[in-house]
Amino acid sequence: MVTMGDLTFEIEKIISEVKARNARRILLQFPEGLLPYVTRIASLIEEQAGVEAVTSLDPCWGACDLADSEALTLRSDLLIHFGHAPWPTQTKVPALFVECFSKREIAEQAVKAALSLGLKRLILTSTVQHVKTLPLVKKALEDAGVSVTLKSDSKRAPYPGQVLGCDYSNAFSPDADTTFFIGGGLFHAVGVALFTGKRVISLDPYTGEVRDVTPNVRRLLLERYTHVAKAKDAKRFGIIIGLKSGQTHINVARSIRDALRSSGKEAYLFAMREVVPERFMNLGDVEALVVTACPRIAIEDGPRFPIPVLTPDEVEVVIGRKNWVELYPSINEKVEEEDG
Amino acid sequence: MVTMGDLTFEIEKIISEVKARNARRILLQFPEGLLPYVTRIASLIEEQAGVEAVTSLDPCWGACDLADSEALTLRSDLLIHFGHAPWPTQTKVPALFVECFSKREIAEQAVKAALSLGLKRLILTSTVQHVKTLPLVKKALEDAGVSVTLKSDSKRAPYPGQVLGCDYSNAFSPDADTTFFIGGGLFHAVGVALFTGKRVISLDPYTGEVRDVTPNVRRLLLERYTHVAKAKDAKRFGIIIGLKSGQTHINVARSIRDALRSSGKEAYLFAMREVVPERFMNLGDVEALVVTACPRIAIEDGPRFPIPVLTPDEVEVVIGRKNWVELYPSINEKVEEEDG
Repeated sequence: MVTMGDLTFEIEKIISEVKARNARRILLQFPEGLLPYVTRIASLIEEQAGVEAVTSLDPCWGACDLADSEALTLRSDLLIHFGHAPWPTQTKVPALFVECFSKREIAEQAVKAALSLGLKRLILTSTVQHVKTLPLVKKALEDAGVSVTLKSDSKRAPYPGQVLGCDYSNAFSPDADTTFFIGGGLFHAVGVALFTGKRVISLDPYTGEVRDVTPNVRRLLLERYTHVAKAKDAKRFGIIIGLKSGQTHINVARSIRDALRSSGKEAYLFAMREVVPERFMNLGDVEALVVTACPRIAIEDGPRFPIPVLTPDEVEVVIGRKNWVELYPSINEKVEEEDG
Repeated sequence: MVTMGDLTFEIEKIISEVKARNARRILLQFPEGLLPYVTRIASLIEEQAGVEAVTSLDPCWGACDLADSEALTLRSDLLIHFGHAPWPTQTKVPALFVECFSKREIAEQAVKAALSLGLKRLILTSTVQHVKTLPLVKKALEDAGVSVTLKSDSKRAPYPGQVLGCDYSNAFSPDADTTFFIGGGLFHAVGVALFTGKRVISLDPYTGEVRDVTPNVRRLLLERYTHVAKAKDAKRFGIIIGLKSGQTHINVARSIRDALRSSGKEAYLFAMREVVPERFMNLGDVEALVVTACPRIAIEDGPRFPIPVLTPDEVEVVIGRKNWVELYPSINEKVEEEDG
């Protein structure tokens, strides 16, 4: 185990896997937050395993974004993917997932936050780097009299309480009225609220900041509503197929194309690796987009696109197969109550 | 032949190729400038050939940037690459290159420009979309008393006078003192000057603008000099391997790594599809980069990177195997004369 910053890396697991496979060339892949460590990690592995390491510097947003075809292009014997839990997929090049866990202790901060906010019945969630601490946090909260649920219901997120940008199965519970999310940034905290419809309190273990993300989710839902409303008036749709290994959903894209065409719209299939707004500035006459690659792209990056961008589920509302309240039920009711 | 804007597209060639191959699914790929036409072209092909078309919207910078692995991922039967002349490569999915030629008439503007500048001995060059007009321009210039060379010496650029961002073989001539470049923008005009060391006059057929690009090249050379000088002081180098089909030069990257290590530098191999500066903002301790993907990335985008970026040839100067004047001979002499 090697420690860098407050993170631990299982370098020994890599060395033994490289040796067991007799690998000569490996490809390393890191999410953005681990970029500061890449040269030290590559050096360690090259020296200790006698292997040639190439590091992918393309953006990497999750375990679904696996540099498998890149490893094939580079004739790597092994792909080592850092920072995400294993993704259930077949790869062309053998892949080793190396999580890296934070050593930060959170229990005390968590108890303080829960007591000061008067939280009684929580479900506890986090991202992979903090999942190891969740049982400790649960125990500390229970000792302080808080009822805590920790769930393991997801096929994609293997650790109890772990959430992914596209999978919040471990955050649903009838026994809790509040989700307590441990982690930095708003991406996952807002994701939990959007997909579960429950109130979310987030605790950033690095800054200590505690916040209720409901206002952020409300703003996001109004944005989504605007995209859907504008898309209803669009005649010509582009449907984006992702080219990343865990984001290629061709049949979903085809069925959306057919549904749109049946509703009297024009619909075109597009393929992209990185779904970035810049490519749509010159795209002539396309008036709305549907992103099938990752459901979070439309939600997080929507405002940066020059035309409305939808998730596959939102298309159902555009063509009248679902209504808005079915799509985003609980929180939407709250928005309607407050706005109505 | 279908005309859009002032460009002609050989749609019939595509229809007959799709039918001859009995293709059911095709992938279309366009450079940026053709994005306004993609839905009309996809519609035409889908209707006339009864095929499913997906359009790649990833950036596409040349025939070396062929969406071959993307076509494989999408299980396309055929890849249709628009706007560039064929690239000599083996592909995993059959590829059809469809040039599109400009119908714009340039001869009159060219004669006017040559006579007003007193040009006597020219070599004529252009990009693929204007190559068909070069014989007409040559004749018109010769009729006006100008000596004109049109050369076909390149293995990668099949048309007489055609240049690519990485190949200016058709622009070298002992019989000419000036290169006359026909095309928009500065990318190719500056490329000709940089790699041939000759004076370049560019004529933009859309705006009619005529310019001597020498000041631009001089500025660019000073920039290159700065990158090389800074890289001499760097201890830790990143060497970037391109992941695009015609830009993957692993052995070049390895030999640069070994040369740098022999010179007492640390050197790491990186792989990237789009070599963009954003990815280097958090890259810890790397102090200089070498891009082996495409020689123009360091030159065009260098100023946007937070650390010095070199071409493979420039590394030779950094480690003392070549000197600066050998690298960029003629124009460099001019810069030294003027600055010295």
